[in-house]
Amino acid sequence: MSELYLEDFAVGQTFGSGSLRVDAEQIKSFAAQFDPQPFHLDEASAAHTFFGGLAASGWHTAALTMRLLVGSEFRPAGGLIGAGVEEMNWPRAVRPGDTLHLKIEIVGVRASKSRPNQGLIKVKTTTLNQNDEPVQLFTGNLLVIARPAAAPGA
Amino acid sequence: MSELYLEDFAVGQTFGSGSLRVDAEQIKSFAAQFDPQPFHLDEASAAHTFFGGLAASGWHTAALTMRLLVGSEFRPAGGLIGAGVEEMNWPRAVRPGDTLHLKIEIVGVRASKSRPNQGLIKVKTTTLNQNDEPVQLFTGNLLVIARPAAAPGA
Repeated sequence: MSELYLEDFAVGQTFGSGSLRVDAEQIKSFAAQFDPQPFHLDEASAAHTFFGGLAASGWHTAALTMRLLVGSEFRPAGGLIGAGVEEMNWPRAVRPGDTLHLKIEIVGVRASKSRPNQGLIKVKTTTLNQNDEPVQLFTGNLLVIARPAAAPGA
Repeated sequence: MSELYLEDFAVGQTFGSGSLRVDAEQIKSFAAQFDPQPFHLDEASAAHTFFGGLAASGWHTAALTMRLLVGSEFRPAGGLIGAGVEEMNWPRAVRPGDTLHLKIEIVGVRASKSRPNQGLIKVKTTTLNQNDEPVQLFTGNLLVIARPAAAPGA
């Protein structure tokens, strides 16, 4: 699949992704490293919390979303370089055994005023579970490069 | 250190954190799992990219920030439960050998209209490197619980 330059993007384009399954061990392992709270670490402790059972850290969901983005049909030239997040929330917890996939939509495209060889695209990424229920809504801006000019005389 | 309830929070409060050092192996290991792009995986490949050298994934920086938050002086009763991100960006890359710490500030407190036993606090978390340069700015809302009423007759 070819890489996409700033000129190739337009509002309304959508891209799909593959899928990833997450199990209890992965949820606990991520939590032990980065978010060691009872509702992410242990089924028995989690039962008595807000989540009512083991749930993935929202940052684990975000990291899994990035993994799906990197392997997706959405391939900006130069890579996925985040300029910032405009919105991110987790309408539903990711649970052991869930299988996640993405819906990726371009919602903004603009050239840089100061740097003619780059621009920003605004991307809305919805992370869905196996029942097509959203587990993360994420809108962010990515830095993308413009198509290089043909070499002089080429 | 005691846990904090909704009533204990006020705009302007600040909290500190411990620190965490991140090395090249951790940067590559996180990237291999969640963000396998050249600038996060390998020094030689990274040299020729936007980053000009190995840089941590922004999601790794976010996860390390969460690790520091969980171990910090900022301890809402019931845990750190994210209701959503309002702003997040990475003004500077995290590099191998960097040591990170947080500045945590309460910028909003409001009770829930529909659920009298809970509320939302808005927290601005700045992740700084060893030179006190910001590597991540993050403003998010957290769900916090109100102090339980004394038991009748207690």
